[in-house]
Amino acid sequence: MGKIKVGVLGATGAVGQRFVEMLSDHPWFEIGTLAASERSAGKKYRDATKWRLSSHLPEDIAEMEVVNVADPHAVDAEIVFSALPASVALEVEKTYASEGFVVASNASSHRMDVDVPLVIPEVNADHLKLVDYQRERTGWDGFIVTNPNCSTIMMTLALKSLMSLEITEVYVATMQAVSGAGFAGVSSMAIMDNVIPYIAGEEEKMEKEPLKLLGSFEGDAVKDAPITISASCNRVPVVDGHTESLWIKFREDVSPEEVLEKVQTFDHGLPDLPTLPEHSLFVHNDADRPQPRLDRDMGNGMTVSVGRIRSAPQGVRMVVLGHNTIRGASGASILNAELISHLRIK
Amino acid sequence: MGKIKVGVLGATGAVGQRFVEMLSDHPWFEIGTLAASERSAGKKYRDATKWRLSSHLPEDIAEMEVVNVADPHAVDAEIVFSALPASVALEVEKTYASEGFVVASNASSHRMDVDVPLVIPEVNADHLKLVDYQRERTGWDGFIVTNPNCSTIMMTLALKSLMSLEITEVYVATMQAVSGAGFAGVSSMAIMDNVIPYIAGEEEKMEKEPLKLLGSFEGDAVKDAPITISASCNRVPVVDGHTESLWIKFREDVSPEEVLEKVQTFDHGLPDLPTLPEHSLFVHNDADRPQPRLDRDMGNGMTVSVGRIRSAPQGVRMVVLGHNTIRGASGASILNAELISHLRIK
Amino acid sequence: MGKIKVGVLGATGAVGQRFVEMLSDHPWFEIGTLAASERSAGKKYRDATKWRLSSHLPEDIAEMEVVNVADPHAVDAEIVFSALPASVALEVEKTYASEGFVVASNASSHRMDVDVPLVIPEVNADHLKLVDYQRERTGWDGFIVTNPNCSTIMMTLALKSLMSLEITEVYVATMQAVSGAGFAGVSSMAIMDNVIPYIAGEEEKMEKEPLKLLGSFEGDAVKDAPITISASCNRVPVVDGHTESLWIKFREDVSPEEVLEKVQTFDHGLPDLPTLPEHSLFVHNDADRPQPRLDRDMGNGMTVSVGRIRSAPQGVRMVVLGHNTIRGASGASILNAELISHLRIK
Amino acid sequence: MGKIKVGVLGATGAVGQRFVEMLSDHPWFEIGTLAASERSAGKKYRDATKWRLSSHLPEDIAEMEVVNVADPHAVDAEIVFSALPASVALEVEKTYASEGFVVASNASSHRMDVDVPLVIPEVNADHLKLVDYQRERTGWDGFIVTNPNCSTIMMTLALKSLMSLEITEVYVATMQAVSGAGFAGVSSMAIMDNVIPYIAGEEEKMEKEPLKLLGSFEGDAVKDAPITISASCNRVPVVDGHTESLWIKFREDVSPEEVLEKVQTFDHGLPDLPTLPEHSLFVHNDADRPQPRLDRDMGNGMTVSVGRIRSAPQGVRMVVLGHNTIRGASGASILNAELISHLRIK
Repeated sequence: MGKIKVGVLGATGAVGQRFVEMLSDHPWFEIGTLAASERSAGKKYRDATKWRLSSHLPEDIAEMEVVNVADPHAVDAEIVFSALPASVALEVEKTYASEGFVVASNASSHRMDVDVPLVIPEVNADHLKLVDYQRERTGWDGFIVTNPNCSTIMMTLALKSLMSLEITEVYVATMQAVSGAGFAGVSSMAIMDNVIPYIAGEEEKMEKEPLKLLGSFEGDAVKDAPITISASCNRVPVVDGHTESLWIKFREDVSPEEVLEKVQTFDHGLPDLPTLPEHSLFVHNDADRPQPRLDRDMGNGMTVSVGRIRSAPQGVRMVVLGHNTIRGASGASILNAELISHLRIK
Repeated sequence: MGKIKVGVLGATGAVGQRFVEMLSDHPWFEIGTLAASERSAGKKYRDATKWRLSSHLPEDIAEMEVVNVADPHAVDAEIVFSALPASVALEVEKTYASEGFVVASNASSHRMDVDVPLVIPEVNADHLKLVDYQRERTGWDGFIVTNPNCSTIMMTLALKSLMSLEITEVYVATMQAVSGAGFAGVSSMAIMDNVIPYIAGEEEKMEKEPLKLLGSFEGDAVKDAPITISASCNRVPVVDGHTESLWIKFREDVSPEEVLEKVQTFDHGLPDLPTLPEHSLFVHNDADRPQPRLDRDMGNGMTVSVGRIRSAPQGVRMVVLGHNTIRGASGASILNAELISHLRIK
Repeated sequence: MGKIKVGVLGATGAVGQRFVEMLSDHPWFEIGTLAASERSAGKKYRDATKWRLSSHLPEDIAEMEVVNVADPHAVDAEIVFSALPASVALEVEKTYASEGFVVASNASSHRMDVDVPLVIPEVNADHLKLVDYQRERTGWDGFIVTNPNCSTIMMTLALKSLMSLEITEVYVATMQAVSGAGFAGVSSMAIMDNVIPYIAGEEEKMEKEPLKLLGSFEGDAVKDAPITISASCNRVPVVDGHTESLWIKFREDVSPEEVLEKVQTFDHGLPDLPTLPEHSLFVHNDADRPQPRLDRDMGNGMTVSVGRIRSAPQGVRMVVLGHNTIRGASGASILNAELISHLRIK
Repeated sequence: MGKIKVGVLGATGAVGQRFVEMLSDHPWFEIGTLAASERSAGKKYRDATKWRLSSHLPEDIAEMEVVNVADPHAVDAEIVFSALPASVALEVEKTYASEGFVVASNASSHRMDVDVPLVIPEVNADHLKLVDYQRERTGWDGFIVTNPNCSTIMMTLALKSLMSLEITEVYVATMQAVSGAGFAGVSSMAIMDNVIPYIAGEEEKMEKEPLKLLGSFEGDAVKDAPITISASCNRVPVVDGHTESLWIKFREDVSPEEVLEKVQTFDHGLPDLPTLPEHSLFVHNDADRPQPRLDRDMGNGMTVSVGRIRSAPQGVRMVVLGHNTIRGASGASILNAELISHLRIK
């Protein structure tokens, strides 16, 4: 059986390049189209973007001609991955869905739409059922599926493993890598020898998205999980990998040992998928781990690391870490698309 | 009137150099003696230490002969500042106090001793009364006064301004500079492009020291403040300046505006002291401030910056920042000594 | 006598901010006008730019209304400092000169014009005589004076002290700070944990500008110095301060000791000027100095540091370092303007 | 046929860990013994060292008991790789050679000994003939083979490709990564936001080792190549990967195009060896390459990158880059051992 043709929308940006890297040698998918803004359209991919990853850009992909993202008819693909900026994604993704494409989006535009699934496969694969309601309402041939914000993903995977313990509140302080803001997002003068204690819109996403992700599918909609989350987001001088300090409170007394056991024995129940790592959650024993430079690449960047599980008032503290442009962006969308393909949702 | 002679114990380390820098042109104090371990004794200061600050080491100090810290009789000073490692400070500081010196210590060894004042002048100047009990018990001619751990100081100054609002709980995640660990404390291979989510002993200090600092002097002892603090300490690739994300909970509902007003109108009630900055607490309005590289030097490194005061469950979030080796170490001890000199405690 | 009114053209950029910082408390000059592009015109300076220096922006300057740089008639100043991008500076500076302003420019546009002085006061103050020829040719009331590129300045000051030894060739490898490219010039993803071995146009400037600077004024023109320079320019993860490895070859045998003596006894013969540092060249003795973080601020950023003078084939090697946005940009222009004011060139 | 048993001497240091990483899954070699100082002897490897690489330490190796390097009889290996400090290596390596081991050393102690081969396989495989003279003189059963200093290797590979053009002089300025100094070699306070223009002993090695490497084997000894090299070595804030700016002078006029062609068509004539990369030299076309973060891992860290070949007085300039702890250390020794094994030198 042949591979499924896929496209990348916004292929020239930081997350777009990660999509291209991960898809260039994918067992199920092959890149049919690279799309970007009008400025890049018509150019060879190698000329339309400056390749900034340490991996080698394959020759055949480098030679592909970039098409204008505004023209879905030029796109040779069943599934399109959206690495578009949110402002652009808002309308473009709807157009693609209406034209029959499966849109696996990393953009934030439609994440909180009531009938758009916001999915991390290990967390809430069942929310994909929203697709039926989405199509019913819109009449689209295709549909939109989204993954959460990068810093949401690491935290939510860890929280998922603890849902049976009845979480009530979460406090989270992030230390986020510069790659999360794209190539030009954070200037070196801004961040070298520095911390920036603010990332526009980030705290709001971390406080709302997990409630939908951890919510239950009831009837025809997702009901938010009854958890209160309060986030403080910081940018630090790290290239890749978001580190998060978490306080998790529970309804009843819970020991660090119980939490450790839950994280270690977390079973996502998923079938084997190409991008699914051996360990979705990995617990480090060393007191000073996880660390972004040493641990971000675990599971090809798809493993979320957990460490320092220790007591806190009415709960526990822990450290959570993951690769923000792989597990937190392109890998998240690709894993969603793999699950959709496996389930033969069309 | 002549200046008061002071000595620096542990003058060759990172904090020791900051002491020397701040004392080299002090209006009340003059350096009488630089003391260090036996290895350095007998050498000129310039040969005993590699000067690592961007300021210029004055010639006359560079030429001073370092004396052995084990020999108090070689020390020409009324006040000695201790930048000794905790393990050494434990006994050495007692010896100096018994020999009649005022010991203003940055070491952690005696901070939690019941009759040793742990003081930030703007927070708990009245705790200096413990000196009488200390002397009574020990029979020493001199005495020991301590300042808290660097990351404790920034946080506690901010909390002090809010004590009338009845704080119940504090969650704090720190992003600490490498200079806090001394010259050789953090190797570049360990921290470049990285975060280390662990600093040995730091969380314990942040959870206990503020309770004593914010406690009330009752009868002949300090009674801990009834606050629960939970800390997560992280090392980040920043040279100087600790940044802290705080969640502060109160007994009653408190708005961010009330908190802002309290911080802005904080009145420490101290007399003018040479090292006391114009603003002990300074509130930044920009959403992305304070930042260590831009704000650590405010008030010659003695101002603690506060920003992003915003709501949180049952309280507020905020960012606090200060220069860890100035406000958080040598400046803290010097300010204590200035207050003691002003009060003519002998 | 009142202060001389000055303006800053391009006041909102990285170099523009340094101009404002240095001029906000200048003994001879006072800021009359801040000018920038149309986008900023009409706004308060504090709203037109995001202040990125660790110093405090004075209130009265923060409140100034920015004027449109395209409208010289709105500029209240005798001298204007140009921090404009080269493409803009080309025409704008001519307009200002024709309108009677003294233009002290940091832009590269007119540096190599035959009748525009390219000046470092300690190197070639006599080249200011070109102003007469410039005015004669153009008929302008005002005139343009330029300073060299940042990396040229550090090197040329060192070379100047050795001109009596007959330099024949110079090889120079630079390690340049990110601030040289402006706020948004170098993204953090590009430079963190990295070196970029290329800076557009930089090597050409380093190879040509020193020949004019070190050239002799003969008749009515400057004759280039007969030196061959070959440069390799690199960007490194440093905030401020350019470091340069030099090989200098001489016509005859020259020892490192002779070179050291020439550098140490360098006498620029200038009168006292406010921005002129005590040492224009300072020789470090430690084998591992100069270093940008420790030495860039010497002489308020105006001292060029020299170190590691040692032998090389037919000459010597040395390390040269200076603050690129102070000595290498705004401080260079201001020093030129101070010299012009002192000489009463109008 | 079974794998050849190898040992690592100094297995707990930074280079030692790279040896273990590269040997843990080697097609020809298997780790028989890990040896280190007495302090580590008797401990499990996982307890004797803190693993600092982002790769995973295999369980079976983590469980190996470290033996005392002073006791060759405890070592189960034919070949031992020496990652010892030079001071220790001096005697220990001789002991191992006399006990019959093939010693493939990364230490500098014996590199310049007249009958010890100093080898980069692609450069001077024929120098291995020195082994016969070494054994004859010493009477040892085993022998010592060395590889050069890390920064020497990158440069010498590039120079080798140009030897037919008759090089006369080389000027080289290095920008070296912190990992070259070992885990604790460069403190973060020393190098963050900084450049250190000095590395003890490094310039001497870069000026002498290439002369032996590029020298000709005549009769029973190596005659130095008649080239003059002058080096300026700098430490920069980069984790891994040394970048070097080179000026190369030739006896006759040589164009950049000729040089480019020589580098691109460089044929080392070696047989296939496991650690030999597809490209020992790879030429980048982009003006701003090579860059350490993007290019250090090419060829699994064994490819030396070349870029920016352009004209210079009597020659060319270029940029050379390689991974200092792989191509420049453990990979260099392993490649030497592979060649020795292939040639069945016993």
